[in-house]
Amino acid sequence: MKPFKGERIFTPGPVEIPDRVREVLGRQIIHHRTPEFREAFLETRELFKQLVDCKEENFVFFASSGTGAMEAAVLNFFEEGDKVIAVVGGKFGERWAELGKRYKLNVVELEVGWGKSVDPEAVDRLIKENPDCKGVLVQASESSTGAYHDVKALAHVTKDTDALLVVDAITALGVYNMKPHEWGLDVVVGGSQKAFMLPPGLSMLWFSSKAKERLTDRSYYFNVKEELKKQKDGQTAFTPAISLILALRESLAMLLEDGMDKVEKRYRIISEGMRKAVEALGLRILPENPSLSLTTVLPPEDIDPEAIRKNMLGLGIRVAGGQGRLKGRIFRISHMGMDIMDMSVVLSALELAMDSLGRRVEFGKAVGEYLSIVQTGVKDG
Amino acid sequence: MKPFKGERIFTPGPVEIPDRVREVLGRQIIHHRTPEFREAFLETRELFKQLVDCKEENFVFFASSGTGAMEAAVLNFFEEGDKVIAVVGGKFGERWAELGKRYKLNVVELEVGWGKSVDPEAVDRLIKENPDCKGVLVQASESSTGAYHDVKALAHVTKDTDALLVVDAITALGVYNMKPHEWGLDVVVGGSQKAFMLPPGLSMLWFSSKAKERLTDRSYYFNVKEELKKQKDGQTAFTPAISLILALRESLAMLLEDGMDKVEKRYRIISEGMRKAVEALGLRILPENPSLSLTTVLPPEDIDPEAIRKNMLGLGIRVAGGQGRLKGRIFRISHMGMDIMDMSVVLSALELAMDSLGRRVEFGKAVGEYLSIVQTGVKDG
Repeated sequence: MKPFKGERIFTPGPVEIPDRVREVLGRQIIHHRTPEFREAFLETRELFKQLVDCKEENFVFFASSGTGAMEAAVLNFFEEGDKVIAVVGGKFGERWAELGKRYKLNVVELEVGWGKSVDPEAVDRLIKENPDCKGVLVQASESSTGAYHDVKALAHVTKDTDALLVVDAITALGVYNMKPHEWGLDVVVGGSQKAFMLPPGLSMLWFSSKAKERLTDRSYYFNVKEELKKQKDGQTAFTPAISLILALRESLAMLLEDGMDKVEKRYRIISEGMRKAVEALGLRILPENPSLSLTTVLPPEDIDPEAIRKNMLGLGIRVAGGQGRLKGRIFRISHMGMDIMDMSVVLSALELAMDSLGRRVEFGKAVGEYLSIVQTGVKDG
Repeated sequence: MKPFKGERIFTPGPVEIPDRVREVLGRQIIHHRTPEFREAFLETRELFKQLVDCKEENFVFFASSGTGAMEAAVLNFFEEGDKVIAVVGGKFGERWAELGKRYKLNVVELEVGWGKSVDPEAVDRLIKENPDCKGVLVQASESSTGAYHDVKALAHVTKDTDALLVVDAITALGVYNMKPHEWGLDVVVGGSQKAFMLPPGLSMLWFSSKAKERLTDRSYYFNVKEELKKQKDGQTAFTPAISLILALRESLAMLLEDGMDKVEKRYRIISEGMRKAVEALGLRILPENPSLSLTTVLPPEDIDPEAIRKNMLGLGIRVAGGQGRLKGRIFRISHMGMDIMDMSVVLSALELAMDSLGRRVEFGKAVGEYLSIVQTGVKDG
């Protein structure tokens, strides 16, 4: 039976766009060199400042997908030949290494294994072995594996060194109550189509005053210095992604109306509930330290994750498969943009899919496990 | 009296978004790694191929504003130290020169005066004086002045040389019935918020086989080689601007349902009509060879263009002021995305604004001049 209302999307980006935001996206365009846009942009920046809990306005937005802001991080804070450590624990860690090499940084790769989280002590040792290290490039949430790297702990390692801690937080910002300044992060990259619940095409780059001192002019389109100067005044160096800025104002308002502590708490309940539910079905969670943003499921050898994924899709529920070396080995369920009750849908579809593939499933068990965690979590706060 | 329905936008980007396109922009997001997106993207590419009237699929889209694709042109087709001629006749010509210098090209600037169009013979002489010249960077429509550079004539100059003709057609593509292959252009840059009538955030880069042979790997985010490989198969190297791709399919369909010959003819009628109308009010057109995309008006010394612009804005009609060294000296009325009848609104507002500023205006005269050109033009075809 074909899903009557079409597909629901549970992929780790893009994620479902809330109605409030879609209404903004469907509006007629306004010009960006107007008091109206300027005011909206300054408001958006003010909300973003609240989100990252910082006093200083050291951040810019780019009209690009998240990789564009990763490129900006590499080009604006490092010179050719600078030595950097790239933590590689998945596809996006690989992207840091590739970007560094493309722009002629001296990249030392720290392989941590796909699904593992980096040990801050390993980074500490590597920095001591490489005292000329100018940066550590890492993901907060490595969405190809679902692992969370403890960037707060990494900041303790980098803070008294010459190294900038550069965090791809594309699938962490808007999920975790990140406090980059307080934690001691140096560069934080975000993207619109993740926990900000927008279409792709807008990226964010926050930086510390330690990072600010190193700003270069290596990039033209992704030039942080130029953008910062303009954006603080409500303008941009080049035409901004107008509709996405206006929509970001709406989604930031949604996040802040709830408060980032509550938002993180919601994701924590979802994440724990999903883990328990998935395990109740005899499936494993891939990462040792799962990100709150998604649940990465590693089925036993005799179940094809792609068969599960396709079966769920037949029920109108789209989850994501694996990427890179995990292609065909896992499936991934995003929590981003989801409300607590939404996950009952995806778990129900998972139960049905497992049953259809010939596994013995006690219908309602996974959902039940999830709900018991939810009930405890919700009572707690 | 405040405009009841709010503002209408007649700026040379962003331009008014048609209802058909806004409906697409307000839809729920779909994932980009799906057969559904792939099919839509391949359809969009097919329509774009028809638009540029080319057999080969030598073009890519980027999630960026137009400047991003200009950066891509500089980085993908030239190596450090390459000598290029940048035609500078306005703000966007200056941007070519800046981009070239930022990425260490050897830039020879050919100043043509703001509002002037480049003389192909001057380019020919300059190439002969610089036989090591690897490229000529130019605008088709220099929207800061409203001048059109005859890129078809320039192609005759470059075609038997080593120089690539690199055309910023951001405000020309979708207006002119451009045939880059037939004309002999080498690189053509486009942007979504101009004649494609979309929000900003999507750019286009077309290239010839002569240009294709020179592709480099200097850029990571704007890498043409990688993108071409993926995009020919309906995918992208990085997350695409999904909603803008889907909306582009709609606006390309609109353009092609009409046919690019008819589209250009419509803009030609509008452009000629606007010129006659503006002159009937005792105002001058700045460029000698006006682009079909906009009308750039240079009022006499005793009229402040900003006063006209603000007065029109009070009537709900937004036109653009000057940029760079033309700031405060001109105002600009965009034709992009406009139907023939739309321009009566802007001309009516202009008549009222001039009268309010104390000029003697025979109401209906400018509109009348416009309509007489329209009537002749429409009868002709």
